[in-house]
Amino acid sequence: MSAPDARLAEAVREISADMKQRRDRGTVASYIPELAQVDPGAFGLCVVDAQGNVAEGGDAAVPFSIQSISKVFTLTLALGMAGDRLWERVGREPSGSAFNSVVQLEYERGIPRNPFINAGAIAVTDLILAGHKPREALGEILRFMRFVSDDDTVSIDERVAASEQRTGFRNAALANYMKSFGVITNPVDFTLGVYFHHCAIAMSCRQLAMAGRFLAHGGRHPTTGHAVIGPQRARRINALMLTCGHYDGSGEFAYRVGLPGKSGVGGGVLAIVPGQASIAVWSPGLDASGNSHLGRVALQELSKRMGWSIFG
Amino acid sequence: MSAPDARLAEAVREISADMKQRRDRGTVASYIPELAQVDPGAFGLCVVDAQGNVAEGGDAAVPFSIQSISKVFTLTLALGMAGDRLWERVGREPSGSAFNSVVQLEYERGIPRNPFINAGAIAVTDLILAGHKPREALGEILRFMRFVSDDDTVSIDERVAASEQRTGFRNAALANYMKSFGVITNPVDFTLGVYFHHCAIAMSCRQLAMAGRFLAHGGRHPTTGHAVIGPQRARRINALMLTCGHYDGSGEFAYRVGLPGKSGVGGGVLAIVPGQASIAVWSPGLDASGNSHLGRVALQELSKRMGWSIFG
Amino acid sequence: MSAPDARLAEAVREISADMKQRRDRGTVASYIPELAQVDPGAFGLCVVDAQGNVAEGGDAAVPFSIQSISKVFTLTLALGMAGDRLWERVGREPSGSAFNSVVQLEYERGIPRNPFINAGAIAVTDLILAGHKPREALGEILRFMRFVSDDDTVSIDERVAASEQRTGFRNAALANYMKSFGVITNPVDFTLGVYFHHCAIAMSCRQLAMAGRFLAHGGRHPTTGHAVIGPQRARRINALMLTCGHYDGSGEFAYRVGLPGKSGVGGGVLAIVPGQASIAVWSPGLDASGNSHLGRVALQELSKRMGWSIFG
Amino acid sequence: MSAPDARLAEAVREISADMKQRRDRGTVASYIPELAQVDPGAFGLCVVDAQGNVAEGGDAAVPFSIQSISKVFTLTLALGMAGDRLWERVGREPSGSAFNSVVQLEYERGIPRNPFINAGAIAVTDLILAGHKPREALGEILRFMRFVSDDDTVSIDERVAASEQRTGFRNAALANYMKSFGVITNPVDFTLGVYFHHCAIAMSCRQLAMAGRFLAHGGRHPTTGHAVIGPQRARRINALMLTCGHYDGSGEFAYRVGLPGKSGVGGGVLAIVPGQASIAVWSPGLDASGNSHLGRVALQELSKRMGWSIFG
Repeated sequence: MSAPDARLAEAVREISADMKQRRDRGTVASYIPELAQVDPGAFGLCVVDAQGNVAEGGDAAVPFSIQSISKVFTLTLALGMAGDRLWERVGREPSGSAFNSVVQLEYERGIPRNPFINAGAIAVTDLILAGHKPREALGEILRFMRFVSDDDTVSIDERVAASEQRTGFRNAALANYMKSFGVITNPVDFTLGVYFHHCAIAMSCRQLAMAGRFLAHGGRHPTTGHAVIGPQRARRINALMLTCGHYDGSGEFAYRVGLPGKSGVGGGVLAIVPGQASIAVWSPGLDASGNSHLGRVALQELSKRMGWSIFG
Repeated sequence: MSAPDARLAEAVREISADMKQRRDRGTVASYIPELAQVDPGAFGLCVVDAQGNVAEGGDAAVPFSIQSISKVFTLTLALGMAGDRLWERVGREPSGSAFNSVVQLEYERGIPRNPFINAGAIAVTDLILAGHKPREALGEILRFMRFVSDDDTVSIDERVAASEQRTGFRNAALANYMKSFGVITNPVDFTLGVYFHHCAIAMSCRQLAMAGRFLAHGGRHPTTGHAVIGPQRARRINALMLTCGHYDGSGEFAYRVGLPGKSGVGGGVLAIVPGQASIAVWSPGLDASGNSHLGRVALQELSKRMGWSIFG
Repeated sequence: MSAPDARLAEAVREISADMKQRRDRGTVASYIPELAQVDPGAFGLCVVDAQGNVAEGGDAAVPFSIQSISKVFTLTLALGMAGDRLWERVGREPSGSAFNSVVQLEYERGIPRNPFINAGAIAVTDLILAGHKPREALGEILRFMRFVSDDDTVSIDERVAASEQRTGFRNAALANYMKSFGVITNPVDFTLGVYFHHCAIAMSCRQLAMAGRFLAHGGRHPTTGHAVIGPQRARRINALMLTCGHYDGSGEFAYRVGLPGKSGVGGGVLAIVPGQASIAVWSPGLDASGNSHLGRVALQELSKRMGWSIFG
Repeated sequence: MSAPDARLAEAVREISADMKQRRDRGTVASYIPELAQVDPGAFGLCVVDAQGNVAEGGDAAVPFSIQSISKVFTLTLALGMAGDRLWERVGREPSGSAFNSVVQLEYERGIPRNPFINAGAIAVTDLILAGHKPREALGEILRFMRFVSDDDTVSIDERVAASEQRTGFRNAALANYMKSFGVITNPVDFTLGVYFHHCAIAMSCRQLAMAGRFLAHGGRHPTTGHAVIGPQRARRINALMLTCGHYDGSGEFAYRVGLPGKSGVGGGVLAIVPGQASIAVWSPGLDASGNSHLGRVALQELSKRMGWSIFG
C-alpha cells in the first residue's frame, strides 16, 4: 500500500472524526437479537483507490456483520455460475416497498423484483446451492469473499448466523412462498441456512472496501490483476446497486450520494466510484428505511468533497 | 454548429439506419386517440456534445409529442420556483408500479412516490400553477422550454392536448385523489388543463437534445452560457431520471443503457451523459412498461459503442 | 297505526333511554363539513312490524342525512330498471377495505366489489342516470323514496348536497377511475351530481323504517300492498346488506347483530328482520369503520332481546 | 332414524339425480396431489332435520377430505378452550381476497382477517395446540369431531395429510409470516402438522351433516342432547360462516343460497338452516373461487325449493 491522495486522506479523516461525534445516529437493528448488542457509537470508513492506496478513519479495522452487503457478492458469484438464466428467477426493478415485503411476491407470482431485497437474494442463494450440500455452497461463497477481498481471514460469525436462524421467520415466509411457485428448488431449510450464514459474514471496512474493488474497475482487481467478472457485468451490477441497493431508500441514496451502493442492516455500506475507488463505511444506527444513517451522511459528504457523483 | 466527433457521427448514422429497418417496433400508445395515429416506422436520433456539435440520424427533425419527457422540465422549473419545499408534496423513490397507478397514493396518503410518475408530475404542475391562471402557467412553461432548447418555435400540439383532455379520466382520478389529501391546491380542472397541455408539447429530437444540455453540463448551457439551475440540482435531477425515469422499467433502462433518461408515451426518450452529451431519440412503438422499445435499444447500442455508461 | 307488541315497545323505549345516556358515542363524521355540525347527543329508534305497528323512541321523528343508506334504494331501483345486467358493472363480494378505497378498483380493472361501497353505488347511480338529465334521474329516485316510505315529504337537504359536491374529491377520483375503464357511461359530473344528491336525502327514523318494510316482506309493503320488487330480489338485497352493508365492519355487524343492515355516515342504520320488521336507528357518532357506534349497540341489544337474529 | 318430510326427501332425491348428470362440474383441486385423483363425477347430499330424520342422495355415504370445513369445528373447539381471547389473534371480517393470500397479513401486521381463511385457521390451530404435543392436540380435535358427529369411525386420511405436508409451502409461508409477528406461538412445524392433519379428516356427507347439527340448534344436539356450545356462540359461528365461509365467493354464496356455509377444496360444503336442518353436500369440482361448483348449485336449488333462505 502506498499513500493515497492527500485531499482524499484528509476528507476521510475529517469526515470520520465528524461522524464519531454526531448525536443523530439512527437506531441499531433489533430484529436480529445478536446485532442489537452492537455499540451504536462505532464508525468506520475506508477508501481504496485504483492504485491500491488506502485512506481510512475511525473503526475501519473492526469487523461487523455485513448482512445484505453479501448480496452483491452472491449475485456476482451466481451470475458467474448460472449466467443470464438467473434473470428467469429474479427481476431487475426497484421494489417500491420494504426489504422483506411479501406483497410484491404475491402480485408477481413468486418472482422477486430484484436480487437485493431479501426474497431476491434468497432466490440467488438457491441458485448457488443448486443441489449441493449447504456446507459446500457456503464454502464456495466464503472462498469467493476471501478471493475478492484478498484476505483469508474473512469468516462467518456463527453466533449471528444462529441468532438469525432462530428468529428469521419472515425470511422463512418469503422462501416458502417462492417455493410454492417453484422459484426455490432446494429444500427451504437448506437455502435459508446458506442465506443466513452468508449474511453473517463479518468484515472490517478495510476488508470490504478491498472486496469491492473489482466493481470499480471493470470486473478486475486493479492491483492483483484478478479477473472476477467481465466489464459489462460489473457495470450492470453497479446499475442494480444504484437502483435497488438501499431497499425503499434507493432513490434517496442516489439523489444524495450519487454512487452505486449496497447497505446492510449491520450498518455497513459498500459504495463504488466507477473507475476510481471502492468505499466501505460502517455505522450501526439505521434510518427508517433500514439503511445506515451516518453511513449515508458520510458518503454524501465524501462524494461531494471529492466530486465523485456519477451524475455530473 | 461544428462537426461532431467522427466516431460518434458514424455510430449515430449506423444505429439510425439499423433501427429504421428493425421489425420489432413495439406498440404505439392507443390510450390517447391522437397519438395512436403516429407512424410506427418513424425513428429519430440526435446527440449534442459539450461543444455544441450535433450528430443526428433518421427523423431527427420531425416533431413528436414529448408527453412525459416534459416532466423533467416542469420539475426543473418548479424547483426553481418552490425550492426544496417541493419535496413535501412529492417523494423521490421509484414506484415499483405502473405510471398511472393509484394504489400507491392510497397507501401513502396522497403523496406520489416521485415527480416522474403521472401523479407526481401533476403535483409538480400544481406547484407551478400556484394560484395563477392556467394560461399564465402554461406560458411560463412554454417560455422555459424555448429558453432551454434555445428555440422559439417550440409549441403545443392543441389537438393532442384536446384529445387527452377528453379522455384523461385516469389522470383526473389521480388529481382528485391527491386533492382529497390537500396535495393539489388549485382547482383540479386548472391543474389538469396545464398538465395535459405541457405533455402535448411537440419537439423534434434535435430540439429536445438541445433542451437537455443543461443537465449534462452542471445546470448550464455550455455554449450559450445560460445558467438554468445550480450544479447540485442538475446532478439530482439526473439521479431521479436514473432511478425513476422509465416508470416500472427504470431498473431495466439503468441495467441496459446505464444513463439517466426520461421516456414519454409518444415514444421519445431524453438521455444524459453527464459532462459529455445530451441525447434525444424517438420511436413511437412502446414496450410493456410504456417506454419506447427501439428508443431503448438504440440508446443501449450507442452507450455501449461510445463507452458512455455512468457505471464504469 | 295500531299498538305494537308490548314487549317490543318496552324494549324500544328502554334501549332508547339507555342510548341517550351513554357516554361512548363515537365520532361525528367530519369529512362532509355540513354533517360535522350534527348534535352527537341525538338518538332515535323506530321499528315497524308486519302489521304496520310502530314502536319508537328518542329522536325518531328528527330527520337526518341518510347518506349511504340511500344505496339500498338506488340498488333496488336500478335492478328494476336494468335487471341482472347491473351485475356486469358491479360485483357482489365484501370489499375487505374502506368505503372509499381505490386500491380494489385498480386490481379489478374498474369493477367495484359491491353496490354498497362508494364506487359501487356511483356505478349504480350511473345506471339509473342512463343518458337522462341529472334532474330527471334525481326526480325518479326521490319519487321512489316517497313511494316506498309512503311519505311525500321526503326531500333532499340541498346544503348537505352542496357541501359534499364542494369536497367530494375522493368520490370524484373513484368516478373518474371507473370512467377510464368504461364502467361509468355518463359524464362524470352528472353521475356524481345525482349521487351526492341522493346521499343527501333527509329522513327520520320513522320514515326510514317505513321505507325498508318491503325488504322485510318479500318485496311487498305489507299494509299498502305495494309490490316494489319480487321476493327473490328482496332476499338477495338482504343478503348483500348482510355481507357488504357496513363497509369493513360488515363481519362485525353480522357477528354482533345478526341482521341485514345498511349504515350511512350520517349515523343512521336500516336493519331488516326478514318476515317480521323493519328497523331504523340513528346516532351520529361513528366507529373506526365509519358505522354508527350506538346504532350498532342498540341493534345488538334489540336483536338479542327480541330473538331476531337470522342465525338461530 | 325416522322418515324425513316427504317434500324434503323428494327434493334431495331429485337434486342429487340432476347433479349427477350435469356436465358443468368445475375443476378438481390440483394443488394437493392426493386430492387431484378424486373422481369428478362424484356427488353426495345429506340433510338432517331437527328430529334427526335423514334425507340423502347420491354418494352421501362416501368419505371425502373435508379440508377447510374442519375450520368450523376447530373454531368451535378453540372458542371453548380460549374464549373470546381468540379474537385477539384473528379478525372477523371477510377478506376480499383469495384463501391463501399473504397480502392482507402484511397490511394488518400478521393478524388474519377471519378464522376461515387459511392464515386464520392456522392461528386457531395454534391456539388449540397451546404448548401440547401435536399428537395430543390432534387427538383432541379428532375426539371432538367424533363427538359432534356421534360417530367413532371418523378418522384422518394419512395419505392426504402427508401429501399436503410435502407440498404445503404456501401455508408454511403464512405460518412463518404470522410467527414473525408473534401470532403463532408454537413451533411452526408443530402447528402446521396439526393443521394439515385436521384438514385431512375424511367424512361422508352423512357424517358431516350429523356433525353440523349443533349449529342449527342453538349449540346443542337436538337428539342426543349434547350441549356443544352456548346458543349465542352458535349464532355467531353461523354469522361468520355467512360472511366468510367461502373465501372470496362468500358474497356470492349468501346471494344465491342464503344460508351460512363452509366449503373445502375437497369439494364439500356444510350449510346450516338455523332451527331446522344441517346439510352436507359434496362434489369435487371447484369454481374459480375454490368452492364446490355443483355443491353451491345444489344448495341454491334446495334452499329455494324448501324456502330455507335466512333472508326472507
